Amino acid sequence: MSRSQKTGFSKLLTIDDAMRKFFSYGVVHRIQTVEVPIVSSVGRVLASNLVTNIDLPPYDRSAVDGFALRAEDTLRSSENNPISLKIVDVVEIGTTPKVPVGRLEAVRISTGAPRPEGADAVVMIEHTAQKKDQVRIFNPISAWKNMIRKGEDVKVGDLLLEEGAEIMPQDVGMLSALSFSSIKVIRKPRVAVLSVGDELLKEGSEQTYGKTVDINRPAILSSLLQDGCEPLDLGIVGDDFGIVEEKVKEALEKNDMLLVGGGTSVGSKDIVPDVLDSLGEPGIVAHGLAMRPGKPAGLAILNKKPVVLLPGFPVAALITYSIIARPIIFRLLGSENIRNTGDIVKARLTRKIDSPPGIREFVRVVIRNKSPGFSAEPVTATGASILSSMVRSNGILVVPENIESIRQNEPVEVRLIRPLK
Amino acid sequence: MSRSQKTGFSKLLTIDDAMRKFFSYGVVHRIQTVEVPIVSSVGRVLASNLVTNIDLPPYDRSAVDGFALRAEDTLRSSENNPISLKIVDVVEIGTTPKVPVGRLEAVRISTGAPRPEGADAVVMIEHTAQKKDQVRIFNPISAWKNMIRKGEDVKVGDLLLEEGAEIMPQDVGMLSALSFSSIKVIRKPRVAVLSVGDELLKEGSEQTYGKTVDINRPAILSSLLQDGCEPLDLGIVGDDFGIVEEKVKEALEKNDMLLVGGGTSVGSKDIVPDVLDSLGEPGIVAHGLAMRPGKPAGLAILNKKPVVLLPGFPVAALITYSIIARPIIFRLLGSENIRNTGDIVKARLTRKIDSPPGIREFVRVVIRNKSPGFSAEPVTATGASILSSMVRSNGILVVPENIESIRQNEPVEVRLIRPLK
Repeated sequence: MSRSQKTGFSKLLTIDDAMRKFFSYGVVHRIQTVEVPIVSSVGRVLASNLVTNIDLPPYDRSAVDGFALRAEDTLRSSENNPISLKIVDVVEIGTTPKVPVGRLEAVRISTGAPRPEGADAVVMIEHTAQKKDQVRIFNPISAWKNMIRKGEDVKVGDLLLEEGAEIMPQDVGMLSALSFSSIKVIRKPRVAVLSVGDELLKEGSEQTYGKTVDINRPAILSSLLQDGCEPLDLGIVGDDFGIVEEKVKEALEKNDMLLVGGGTSVGSKDIVPDVLDSLGEPGIVAHGLAMRPGKPAGLAILNKKPVVLLPGFPVAALITYSIIARPIIFRLLGSENIRNTGDIVKARLTRKIDSPPGIREFVRVVIRNKSPGFSAEPVTATGASILSSMVRSNGILVVPENIESIRQNEPVEVRLIRPLK
Repeated sequence: MSRSQKTGFSKLLTIDDAMRKFFSYGVVHRIQTVEVPIVSSVGRVLASNLVTNIDLPPYDRSAVDGFALRAEDTLRSSENNPISLKIVDVVEIGTTPKVPVGRLEAVRISTGAPRPEGADAVVMIEHTAQKKDQVRIFNPISAWKNMIRKGEDVKVGDLLLEEGAEIMPQDVGMLSALSFSSIKVIRKPRVAVLSVGDELLKEGSEQTYGKTVDINRPAILSSLLQDGCEPLDLGIVGDDFGIVEEKVKEALEKNDMLLVGGGTSVGSKDIVPDVLDSLGEPGIVAHGLAMRPGKPAGLAILNKKPVVLLPGFPVAALITYSIIARPIIFRLLGSENIRNTGDIVKARLTRKIDSPPGIREFVRVVIRNKSPGFSAEPVTATGASILSSMVRSNGILVVPENIESIRQNEPVEVRLIRPLK
């Protein structure tokens, strides 16, 4: 008899209690850093605070195409009585101004070009009239108008991004501006995925009577790819204590985390929990969670590394991945900010939902855009084995432990698991 | 004088008009397909409808651990008067039942194991009492209880996913269940990115007086990576008609799309629009858009391929990318479903915003979680050149063309450009 058969999940831990207990062992730490080119740093996690070491822009420059001049020269200009300035130079972007701007002088300047000495404002070309080497200005301009000052964008010592931030395209631009060509990020977590079960066939196999093609391993490997991990596929092994033990040991030597699926229910061949408990302390720290689907999910710590036991049913495995495994992955990345995988929409429930107390339930729903607003229709096939319900639904509605039912037409918040059409 | 100086953006096209005009040339079509392993198909776009060719499950199977039996045998059983059945076989998952279930017989069965002939229901093990080769059943059970029927999940001919859908992890699981090892998806769009400007230095260069490190190209290349494209970095070229012409021609031969940045404003060295108009029909179809920032954005068609002119200012370039270039990329992918890049949050505006009529304005805001609900604070530095405003803000508030102001405390919807802390 397996461990779980003995205990029979008599005590279900709430998700929060299980996670708290798991993290209390203090073994999940941020992993190492790697240096990557800035362009490919997008989506990665910043390894240290980004503090600027230069001013941006690094020099005063024009914000427009026009004439750089001394603002005080324009004080008395008007539509009827424009002031005329002598054009003493032309500064294109990418060049260096050579001639300073003296009283009643101006320099033709391009957007982005550096401020010539003496000038303290730029009049837009549209607001001037040029005639040979003279330019007429029709309105007074205030000092520093249409100029971007040195350090106006960022100053030396500014904290721009905090350690643990996910790098976005705009940050890549900023890194370039700050003269970085590469940046330190957290290395991709190496997460091993193992399926256990005599009944499992490798993907691409024909469905065979009595056997079943492994659904969870490919789905979980692809989830890991999506979450910026480096998944290691340990394949499928049969229900053999020795082989599972060997695979688990191997996985924990070379990887940051292990996800092991199948054989974690109260089935007669349920050897995974026994293997995990035989390999050292503390072994399994939670098994049997107050969630639906996902009750057979579990958490273990071996070799000071996190192990998540995924339920065998595909829908339960996917929900356990996102609710239990993802927060651990984000700790490995040193990021408390768990990336969202879909928008949240507010919708009205099309029919009443009942949920047992003390259980967090994940209800698959179909969100439809029905004026006014969205409707959320619970998908009828609620069996954890009904994979098509995950493909046909487009959102997950979470019913917390303390809610026993949600009435028809009540407003709910639903996280999309597929973009709305 | 450049083309844009001549026209001076006297007529700004609305974003919608510009896109309509651009798409009316009918040159943007879905690109080719490629076959990829199912695990790495996550995030890719499905090339054709996914219609099932097998039933799932492919045979009746048990949904629980228990005893497979004939439901009619249990009709008269009760707590006080249980029925006793003879255990004639054990079927583990992964094996094939050999012994049929006759009258007053039962087979010990594991979750997922195939239904033995004759049996039409499974009683959960927890609800039975076993003694040697006899099992006692305490309650009547209805036919097909705790059985998952052949085809209950999906049936031959079911349309599961439509062409153009983004493949999610749950779909990868379904593909595996349907015996796929690889799947046809749309090839990654090849998008070339070119920066033009004598003033531009390659990323990693020190900031130099009069020059500026290229911000847009790295930011746009990383946006393309994030959107599932294969970016081609054409680097930086100076403001030289011949060289720009050559680069544009080269880009359009080998790629699906070109994004060209810098030199598209009304600056004196603005050669990009002239080059694009010299290379054939129709050339530029829109230049000068009623958006802020992003007015100098433009659209061209050359060699029947889309070209987007990105404004020189980084914030404008990034917004133009997401508003103008992304919808074109998603057309190349054959997907009308433009992937969202961030959640939408509802927030209250902390201060009034004014926006010119007829212009679609993109206001950077800082979203804060202030009970009750979120607040959206417009970022003061509104100059398109202030890149730090994109790094420091976490959302973009769109003010449509027909709205001239939004009052303080009004509720607004903001798309996050960075996850909330």
